[in-house]
Amino acid sequence: MGMTMTQKIIAAHAGLDKVEAGQLVMAKVDLVLGNDITAPVAVKNFEAAGFDSVFDKTKIALVMDHFTPNKDIKAAEQCKQVREFAKKYGIVNFFDTGCVGVEHALLPEKGLVTTGDLVVGADSHTCTYGALGAFSTGVGSTDIAAAMKMGKLWFKVPSAIRFILKGKPSKWVGGKDVILHIIGLIGVDGALYKSMEFTGEGLKNLTMEDRLCMANMAIEAGGKNGIFEVDDLTLEYAKEHAAKPVTVYKADEDAEYERTIEIDLSEVKPTVAFPHLPENAHTIDDVGDIKIDQVVIGSCTNGRIEDLRIAADILKGKTVHPDVRCIIIPATQKIWLQAVEEGLAKIFVEANCAFSTPTCGPCLGGHMGILAAGERCVATTNRNFVGRMGHVDSEVYLASPAVAAASALAGKIAGPED
Amino acid sequence: MGMTMTQKIIAAHAGLDKVEAGQLVMAKVDLVLGNDITAPVAVKNFEAAGFDSVFDKTKIALVMDHFTPNKDIKAAEQCKQVREFAKKYGIVNFFDTGCVGVEHALLPEKGLVTTGDLVVGADSHTCTYGALGAFSTGVGSTDIAAAMKMGKLWFKVPSAIRFILKGKPSKWVGGKDVILHIIGLIGVDGALYKSMEFTGEGLKNLTMEDRLCMANMAIEAGGKNGIFEVDDLTLEYAKEHAAKPVTVYKADEDAEYERTIEIDLSEVKPTVAFPHLPENAHTIDDVGDIKIDQVVIGSCTNGRIEDLRIAADILKGKTVHPDVRCIIIPATQKIWLQAVEEGLAKIFVEANCAFSTPTCGPCLGGHMGILAAGERCVATTNRNFVGRMGHVDSEVYLASPAVAAASALAGKIAGPED
Repeated sequence: MGMTMTQKIIAAHAGLDKVEAGQLVMAKVDLVLGNDITAPVAVKNFEAAGFDSVFDKTKIALVMDHFTPNKDIKAAEQCKQVREFAKKYGIVNFFDTGCVGVEHALLPEKGLVTTGDLVVGADSHTCTYGALGAFSTGVGSTDIAAAMKMGKLWFKVPSAIRFILKGKPSKWVGGKDVILHIIGLIGVDGALYKSMEFTGEGLKNLTMEDRLCMANMAIEAGGKNGIFEVDDLTLEYAKEHAAKPVTVYKADEDAEYERTIEIDLSEVKPTVAFPHLPENAHTIDDVGDIKIDQVVIGSCTNGRIEDLRIAADILKGKTVHPDVRCIIIPATQKIWLQAVEEGLAKIFVEANCAFSTPTCGPCLGGHMGILAAGERCVATTNRNFVGRMGHVDSEVYLASPAVAAASALAGKIAGPED
Repeated sequence: MGMTMTQKIIAAHAGLDKVEAGQLVMAKVDLVLGNDITAPVAVKNFEAAGFDSVFDKTKIALVMDHFTPNKDIKAAEQCKQVREFAKKYGIVNFFDTGCVGVEHALLPEKGLVTTGDLVVGADSHTCTYGALGAFSTGVGSTDIAAAMKMGKLWFKVPSAIRFILKGKPSKWVGGKDVILHIIGLIGVDGALYKSMEFTGEGLKNLTMEDRLCMANMAIEAGGKNGIFEVDDLTLEYAKEHAAKPVTVYKADEDAEYERTIEIDLSEVKPTVAFPHLPENAHTIDDVGDIKIDQVVIGSCTNGRIEDLRIAADILKGKTVHPDVRCIIIPATQKIWLQAVEEGLAKIFVEANCAFSTPTCGPCLGGHMGILAAGERCVATTNRNFVGRMGHVDSEVYLASPAVAAASALAGKIAGPED
């Protein structure tokens, strides 16, 4: 029996010819990630363990993106703690206010994660980098304390679900709609501890932004990771962004999958996940009349330049509904600049949107757009659990940038064709 | 005995030919201002008093600028309460996320306050509009509840200190240096309940931004208000911004002043107010070697386009010191757009600054750049009391945009010539 893409990467990083689902292996990591919420815990554990060095100063990324620019004293103290740790151990990739971006947008952009890598991060959406043909997964803060010292970790090799994509999505359908459709199909525990492996001729019709968005939300189906078969687009992206040569891991012909699901991209409609689970998927023609108070376009899921272009296309020359606060948050400073240079930022501000400096902010109820009781938000973020963006009696509807922008104009959940 | 500018405005709004210092009068107000911190208290009092209408829907401004985009659930609830009040009473000038700006920059820009007006606001820096030749002053939230209903309030007529300005400030000296110099001279209670009346041939060498900044900080010397003699620049500004014809109130030749102070603008040096009082003024050649962690350029004091131009001039093509987080916050959406169109925003982000959506934010320890224990910030804001921007063991140094930008590059307090 052969191996899946994920299993191949794990085997290579464990120095083994062969691994199989369920096996426990010790594997080397190419990058260890922490942020301003999780790294302080890791730093505390690192110090408590008596560690006095890191395995590789260039292979640790500490990204102060969640509650920054510091939302309060606690956030300030947490960043300070990580900043001092980074200085003490000479961590090269420490990203602070001013040069920071949302971690899962920043790391691919900087080429710190690339095709064939094994990446762990103390953040559940670390699975994002699977879009590049990497095995990347979220781990606990204690795990990254150990990984920062050892450069390796124990993994249980996951089994897999294969998604064979075919066809071409229609104009306003993107990766977000596809992944919400998939989570709607299989449920929030549909891929529990499994890798979601995306392949098929439909891949060629998905941009890198689509893929990053889809891999990002593998965890919302319970997946250990999401991973895309490497194609020309992946290799181009790797060449443009990463400094090092990459390794491509292809699934064996006879790899074992627990399940194979075919998705016809041409049949996916704009999709909205209703509160309070990402699996509550409704197509846009089935959303009813739902008045909203806020729209957030951004996050590690949909804060990339293509996402902003789509939103700007819809908002151009128009004004956000007077009952809606629309907050646009480019995911990195590079994307921020690009949005300014392409005229997108101007379109947003002229449409009465707030255009923020990069931050995870409202996605996890951090800051920059928190909801009061009874308020509803359409967000391009990845999670809509109870109280995720504020008050326990608020509601988050997950959608694409196209649906979010159209909803901002309509004052209610609306499709880009409305 | 004649009247001062302030006394003339109060007399006219009280329907009296003559008022004198110490007199209690009931005067009509042209605008009543509340923000997301003070308006909720006013709304509560308004409703508790059983009021069911406002005196004029067009003469109330409610500006959600302090903790927005909502930094937390409490901020969200406060904005919601004010939003519902504004809707219920048809308040025309309700400014929410997306079209908001820092109140004291927004109101002059929108022409809602102008020359000859009497303005009250539940915010201590309401004195800003004195730059336009208005009498404007901060009052309590209960006062604005009454003012929103009645359109008038009791005032005790202030006595005055006259500042005769002469000469021309040197290149890097602006209104901020002049007012810090003045507060250094007279102390934080030097103008207690008095009006600070600015006149003299030096006026012509101060831009409107300089004047707004100086009037803004009258309260930091304990002043009831700051007010500038009206000249051609004032009238041009009024014509450009305000829809209505304006009235100019000129001090009588024989007006009484408690004190007259001459300021030679050509002798004022770049000035920094050390912690923890605005009166702790040091000239830039006397600051010593003070390492900093953060720079904030923005606020109702120095978040206007001229301020950003000065900062950009210094930051252009350079990179902020690696130990400094530099946060630039344009005061309104209009200034934001202008900064983008003039290429200033690009300069800032390329220099590794965070460029925020408009908010009062860090100035009052709200959000968007809060300090940890032991951290130091150079800020263009107006107040540096203990814990003002975060932890009680943090420090704020007040300075001009020029000094702030130069300090951001140097990693320590530095002048623009350094």
